[in-house]
Amino acid sequence: MKYVRFRDPAGAVRRGRLEDDRVRFGNATYSLDDDEIDVLPPSEPSKIVCIGRNYADHADEMGNDVPDRPLLFLKPPNAVASHGDTITAPAGKERIDYEAELGVVIGEQCRHVPVSDAMDVVEGFTCVNDISNRDDQEKEQNWVRGKAFDGAAPLGPVLATPDEVPEDASVQSRVNGDLRQDGTREQLIFPISELIAEITTYLTLEPGDVIATGTPEGVGPLEDGDTVEIEVEGVGTLENTVRLP
Amino acid sequence: MKYVRFRDPAGAVRRGRLEDDRVRFGNATYSLDDDEIDVLPPSEPSKIVCIGRNYADHADEMGNDVPDRPLLFLKPPNAVASHGDTITAPAGKERIDYEAELGVVIGEQCRHVPVSDAMDVVEGFTCVNDISNRDDQEKEQNWVRGKAFDGAAPLGPVLATPDEVPEDASVQSRVNGDLRQDGTREQLIFPISELIAEITTYLTLEPGDVIATGTPEGVGPLEDGDTVEIEVEGVGTLENTVRLP
Repeated sequence: MKYVRFRDPAGAVRRGRLEDDRVRFGNATYSLDDDEIDVLPPSEPSKIVCIGRNYADHADEMGNDVPDRPLLFLKPPNAVASHGDTITAPAGKERIDYEAELGVVIGEQCRHVPVSDAMDVVEGFTCVNDISNRDDQEKEQNWVRGKAFDGAAPLGPVLATPDEVPEDASVQSRVNGDLRQDGTREQLIFPISELIAEITTYLTLEPGDVIATGTPEGVGPLEDGDTVEIEVEGVGTLENTVRLP
Repeated sequence: MKYVRFRDPAGAVRRGRLEDDRVRFGNATYSLDDDEIDVLPPSEPSKIVCIGRNYADHADEMGNDVPDRPLLFLKPPNAVASHGDTITAPAGKERIDYEAELGVVIGEQCRHVPVSDAMDVVEGFTCVNDISNRDDQEKEQNWVRGKAFDGAAPLGPVLATPDEVPEDASVQSRVNGDLRQDGTREQLIFPISELIAEITTYLTLEPGDVIATGTPEGVGPLEDGDTVEIEVEGVGTLENTVRLP
């Protein structure tokens, strides 16, 4: 099943089902991409827990070693953006990058989840674009200016239940239609169950919280006017345009 | 004025005034420290934006230089704890530290706030204990295991309006009654107005969000069974006991 959170033409927030490329709620159906509805993020996370360097080829392209445990960082709620939103960034930066990621949406409040039970707390999957301001990221201990600015976490367009997303699902990005990243879920150094176990050793996860599982090789800069797509097999395509001040 | 958020004996969440050391709401009054009410954090932050190395003497004791712009890090909502709560920490850590901080509670949604207007978005002040797990903090790029674990941000006991807190307010910690830190608001390298301007260049702040302004010299480890107090002049004293697994 694929679910879409959206604001309907009357302004009400609904969670419909995506069936035959149409969003269905009650008797009404809508297109995902016309202007009749506002697509919202698939959940309202209290936090997004992100994983750095979780693909060996990406760690290598950034000149980093593979970590011996998951590299964690945080995006707060102000970073959340939706399918179709215009991505902006702090003014005067030289390099704002896209990063395609498989997002895990948590379904229940949980702490100290063992690896063997970890998939039980997963409600589903979505696409994440881990928008990154490299100018500041390279200069700061904690990636707040670099990764937590407003709009730095487009999510969506849907929440797909786990059965929809294969174990070897592809994780891709395209800029203006050109393929830039092409990884798979199987390439994750720390798989999803281990990420959930490690995170919940320290932090309680809440329903709607999102884990961004890391990005494959091929990250690069966005330019003003670009269209960037993140596609996760079994989920769909998260599309945003870019407006850089 | 000093405000206290609390759960009353009927279970309702209220915001009362602290008058003559009594919490008043409607016709009822309560003691801040008996078991009749549960004192809650003074706000429900969507994020706590914390400042590292904002006192020269503390940067020095940790072997760090003073930064040329504020060092930012984040504590998500799972980190929030209240006055009177028992502080715990991830199991098996060697060193869990207290850090006394002046907390700024934001009163309105804001972005791109100029320094000259920054105090207009401040609803008031509270005490923050920036509980820090040094074992992990020293090993990670972003201080998530180190600073964002459950209960790592006791806040309270009150929100004091800005007129209550002098420009040179003292910021102190005591462990089992012994004074350990004794700084002042005047010693902040980056004053509150500059912190708000810098943060809101990147992140929208929401009502109830908290800025933890940094800690003075004298941080140190907590032991199982300790009582730790954070006192900010004009606010009051945030007290917690420590239970280390």
